[in-house]
Amino acid sequence: MEALVIHAPGDLRVETYPTAEVGAGQMRVRVRCGGICGSDLHYYQHGGFGTVRINEPMVLGHEVAGVIDEVGPGVTAYKAGDRVAISPSRPCGLCRFCQEGLQNHCLEMRYYGSAMRNPHVQGAFRQEIVIEEYQAHRLADSLSDAEGAMAEPFSVALHGVKRAGDLLGKKVLVTGCGPIGALAIIAARRAGAAHIVATDVSAHPLGKALKVGADEVINVAEHPDVLARFAADKGQFDVLLEASGNASALRSAFDVLRPRGIIVQLGLSGGEMTLPINTIVAKEFDLRGVFRFHQEFAVAVELLNKGLVDVKPLISATLSYRDSARAFALAADRSQAMKVLLNFD
Amino acid sequence: MEALVIHAPGDLRVETYPTAEVGAGQMRVRVRCGGICGSDLHYYQHGGFGTVRINEPMVLGHEVAGVIDEVGPGVTAYKAGDRVAISPSRPCGLCRFCQEGLQNHCLEMRYYGSAMRNPHVQGAFRQEIVIEEYQAHRLADSLSDAEGAMAEPFSVALHGVKRAGDLLGKKVLVTGCGPIGALAIIAARRAGAAHIVATDVSAHPLGKALKVGADEVINVAEHPDVLARFAADKGQFDVLLEASGNASALRSAFDVLRPRGIIVQLGLSGGEMTLPINTIVAKEFDLRGVFRFHQEFAVAVELLNKGLVDVKPLISATLSYRDSARAFALAADRSQAMKVLLNFD
Amino acid sequence: MEALVIHAPGDLRVETYPTAEVGAGQMRVRVRCGGICGSDLHYYQHGGFGTVRINEPMVLGHEVAGVIDEVGPGVTAYKAGDRVAISPSRPCGLCRFCQEGLQNHCLEMRYYGSAMRNPHVQGAFRQEIVIEEYQAHRLADSLSDAEGAMAEPFSVALHGVKRAGDLLGKKVLVTGCGPIGALAIIAARRAGAAHIVATDVSAHPLGKALKVGADEVINVAEHPDVLARFAADKGQFDVLLEASGNASALRSAFDVLRPRGIIVQLGLSGGEMTLPINTIVAKEFDLRGVFRFHQEFAVAVELLNKGLVDVKPLISATLSYRDSARAFALAADRSQAMKVLLNFD
Amino acid sequence: MEALVIHAPGDLRVETYPTAEVGAGQMRVRVRCGGICGSDLHYYQHGGFGTVRINEPMVLGHEVAGVIDEVGPGVTAYKAGDRVAISPSRPCGLCRFCQEGLQNHCLEMRYYGSAMRNPHVQGAFRQEIVIEEYQAHRLADSLSDAEGAMAEPFSVALHGVKRAGDLLGKKVLVTGCGPIGALAIIAARRAGAAHIVATDVSAHPLGKALKVGADEVINVAEHPDVLARFAADKGQFDVLLEASGNASALRSAFDVLRPRGIIVQLGLSGGEMTLPINTIVAKEFDLRGVFRFHQEFAVAVELLNKGLVDVKPLISATLSYRDSARAFALAADRSQAMKVLLNFD
Repeated sequence: MEALVIHAPGDLRVETYPTAEVGAGQMRVRVRCGGICGSDLHYYQHGGFGTVRINEPMVLGHEVAGVIDEVGPGVTAYKAGDRVAISPSRPCGLCRFCQEGLQNHCLEMRYYGSAMRNPHVQGAFRQEIVIEEYQAHRLADSLSDAEGAMAEPFSVALHGVKRAGDLLGKKVLVTGCGPIGALAIIAARRAGAAHIVATDVSAHPLGKALKVGADEVINVAEHPDVLARFAADKGQFDVLLEASGNASALRSAFDVLRPRGIIVQLGLSGGEMTLPINTIVAKEFDLRGVFRFHQEFAVAVELLNKGLVDVKPLISATLSYRDSARAFALAADRSQAMKVLLNFD
Repeated sequence: MEALVIHAPGDLRVETYPTAEVGAGQMRVRVRCGGICGSDLHYYQHGGFGTVRINEPMVLGHEVAGVIDEVGPGVTAYKAGDRVAISPSRPCGLCRFCQEGLQNHCLEMRYYGSAMRNPHVQGAFRQEIVIEEYQAHRLADSLSDAEGAMAEPFSVALHGVKRAGDLLGKKVLVTGCGPIGALAIIAARRAGAAHIVATDVSAHPLGKALKVGADEVINVAEHPDVLARFAADKGQFDVLLEASGNASALRSAFDVLRPRGIIVQLGLSGGEMTLPINTIVAKEFDLRGVFRFHQEFAVAVELLNKGLVDVKPLISATLSYRDSARAFALAADRSQAMKVLLNFD
Repeated sequence: MEALVIHAPGDLRVETYPTAEVGAGQMRVRVRCGGICGSDLHYYQHGGFGTVRINEPMVLGHEVAGVIDEVGPGVTAYKAGDRVAISPSRPCGLCRFCQEGLQNHCLEMRYYGSAMRNPHVQGAFRQEIVIEEYQAHRLADSLSDAEGAMAEPFSVALHGVKRAGDLLGKKVLVTGCGPIGALAIIAARRAGAAHIVATDVSAHPLGKALKVGADEVINVAEHPDVLARFAADKGQFDVLLEASGNASALRSAFDVLRPRGIIVQLGLSGGEMTLPINTIVAKEFDLRGVFRFHQEFAVAVELLNKGLVDVKPLISATLSYRDSARAFALAADRSQAMKVLLNFD
Repeated sequence: MEALVIHAPGDLRVETYPTAEVGAGQMRVRVRCGGICGSDLHYYQHGGFGTVRINEPMVLGHEVAGVIDEVGPGVTAYKAGDRVAISPSRPCGLCRFCQEGLQNHCLEMRYYGSAMRNPHVQGAFRQEIVIEEYQAHRLADSLSDAEGAMAEPFSVALHGVKRAGDLLGKKVLVTGCGPIGALAIIAARRAGAAHIVATDVSAHPLGKALKVGADEVINVAEHPDVLARFAADKGQFDVLLEASGNASALRSAFDVLRPRGIIVQLGLSGGEMTLPINTIVAKEFDLRGVFRFHQEFAVAVELLNKGLVDVKPLISATLSYRDSARAFALAADRSQAMKVLLNFD
């Protein structure tokens, strides 16, 4: 069986990799499709992000869907041949945070393809993987494998939207229309947002934002002053979903976000951010960080299965895992690509 | 100008009625369409409900849309010819509850067509009405007058769904599929509910519930045991939207609503309700009353204008106001009608 | 070792009872003091409550404090001689509700001295008990054993107050001043309630309510009309802590509780309750059940240890467990007793 | 009648100032005592803060208490001779935010002694002032005028604590123990915080923090590493009340604040703040700004009146308003003073 293993920046290799035994409560899945995430790109381009660095070979990937090959003892809800999306979230279940329902903050989380812990947690860009039954979520026949692989980033967006609280009837600004920003538009629309404005500095993601449900888009590189139109009465937006990780995007929203506005920070920054804290104080903003997800994976698959959301416009291309260099280059090109997927057949 | 005036149970007359002068900040609207509400039916059939009784002639109606005929001094956002839905909610703006943002509990509310206060507040089933500018909400060209008149009951449903808190990804049970229950399904779906089951004792409303987005419907008169399928693990539903006002509907949900489940009580009962309070205690339910709306009217019109919700399947018939006896009889017939509207042209 | 075992209504025996082995992560505690709870009284007087019935001999008791005698392998935070309050809450940690932080709804809860499950879970009215380390909470030297035993019912009150949300500056009505009502007064005061009014039908508990912090008390048997003084502007209280389980107490509060008022139902009723549901709807009350506690036990002990609350006024008497008939009779006498404790030395 | 008028940095004059007529619903108050706030100090030392600058003479002061001299027509709740604390918050009541219950964000707020608007809103450091009836809050006989004047800054602290949500049983870190930080300790304790740790860089405020209820204090200038003791399991504090306005205080808390911890930002910064935004994201902090108050003023006075809080330890000195230079110098000296008050007799 083969896997995509990162050894150092730019050094991503197809390698033979062993498949674990299928234990009780486990299943072996033939991976069909995997999405390239921004963190995969960071490992590939820079060997990590912030203080998180690769210091041993690691299989990349955590956005995958596949077909069950074999089920272990005690598995009753699935059988060989079932198509599933796989949640990469494997919390311990026992720590303080798991016992509070905050599994995404688990003290012993083993999240696929992450160098946060040492030894690193090996990822899912491989032809076969053995998973726990609770990681599997059955896909409807109407969904492609690629859409199944989108369940993971969509879970991040859903979790972000959850953190914003009830959006029904709210006016929402989304800054940054990469995959997570665009999926946040889909989630916000599904959650009942009445008006969604999206900004970016690039035309391609803005076009996609419109396709997936934004009411208006603004290219703030070309039209830096248009957003000011929403500044009346101390600001017209109720909620900001910040998905760019860019300080100037965040700051530009301060004038158009109403007092008591909620800022959901989905985007990670390259480093520190300098902010006009007195505006946060005077307008009583509520700035909330968002990190991964847990329960939202099941919701993501259910909304996809029922056709209540449509992520297809965000799937830019699917390439063979053997062609990873080209796939990663495409994934990094914002002028052409939203989500690029790898095919593991 | 003519209006529909209730004098006593069964005594609903077309009468000549004066139109007020158009003052500053006001507009005269030619009413086009008005929906018959359950409370209109109660006034018509029984002269009121609970302690609320007609004791002087009263124009009925509070669900109306029309065309602006004349705007008074100081009105800038509207002009003659604009089509609008009219909010019947006219809070004082000054009392303790208005100053808390709870205008629906205003101590001096003047709500159209309501006998709660004496003298009664005259309603909007008339050919012309003078309104405050803030009551008007512009309708998109894509909407019919009838859809515009649906903004009011949809606001009630939206307010009920708001009271349930964030519904994104939640499992929702709706008991009672009359107009409010069916509109609650639409609102819950728009708010991101992942699975919606609706119950009623009659086939016609259940058919409509399916049309507007329920995932499953159950005729609990014919299949009283089917709901029990959701009783596993102390109950599978997160939220109950109770729109029947029927104690047995509410009670039947107790077994299938999870601990900490939220009950939104939209339905009014004929009188008192006998409830197993110890179940509310032991499962830590959260039972929340819902009364009218205020801010939700603008949201209702915006969602309708954008096509984010579709209420057309709930419009059963539109009859002339001169034919009110037939219209009210139809409105009272659950085997044929959901919402019946009156035409005031 | 001896224990207090209930066999049938009125048949409570001192019996020799075995003590379990001390396993890994466990400790053996010499029980010093145990409070008689309303549920103990119900088992004693009626053999149970509602559908919960004794059908095999069961050690009563779940409000106990004692001294550690021996610690098992792996226990590091405690040693022999430490005085501890013991939480009777032993959730499974693995079920859906435990994984959501709602351990009080655990599908496999083993709560001391409860006949809810079969076989029953044996209680803590015994001279020795082996507990899990996580059940123990160290008592400050300044606290008596009896105050330590009060940690359990105080946890119930804290959980109830938690369910009411933020009480800082709120006006609170407490109906029913038995032990739980009185402890709810203490908890509400500690949580920052600005004004607390307490009602009961009996003088003794009302005197205690004043002692533990109520601003005013009303004997509603003698002065049924006094509460109406708070009816202005649709009701002056923000929160009702209902601890009587009496329908008329709950109903009487409907007129004095403001729209959007929160009702926390702590009291269990003898059976069903008939309520004016339309008032709940029209005033948009929020009626929340309260069942046991989990995390609150640690908080209860911390607040007691620091002297931030004082439960001593509620301790009516401490009798030997060998004198249980007299103790239970006293506990049942509202004219004399709040909390009666048993001494197990 | 005389008033304290700021003309320019350092130029604070005692001037003769006219008293307005007492209109309907108004009262004339003889001001007895006024506290010097940080913003008064900024006007005095620097002519303002941030973009807020004095550009015309302005009476300072907004923390005052006094005695009613005369009541206007229609005032029924007060009479001459009543002692009152005066809320400086005068919202319009009509704007979007007032109608949402967010009066502190009123679009037309006239807050005493503030240069935010032009012309500036004149303050209350004067011998007489005419107020609206709703601004008055009766003081108990047990309270001094100085304690009455503390109602205003205590309202800020209460509002901050409200923004943190329910504190009952929570572990709270307070950074910065100036008047607002110290009052936040009092508010947090009253709201039921179980453990409160306070930090500052100066001994005098830390001593006061202990006096008003902190469980522990840390001089982070002398012992920069002590706070790290709370870093276990991703952080032990549930809530941070940040009252220093200092970026390093805020940053230092990031390691000891648990995932999903709440940061209430009470302190204003000199300018921008550079923050590790990725930590906010990864730990899902919730950073909430706090600006003034409105409803909390009544709560502040009620808690003071009942002796449920004690602010006396924070009153450092009371000087004549004619001695303002000395008073402002003392107010600026953190090594000696917490709150300095002016006497207007």
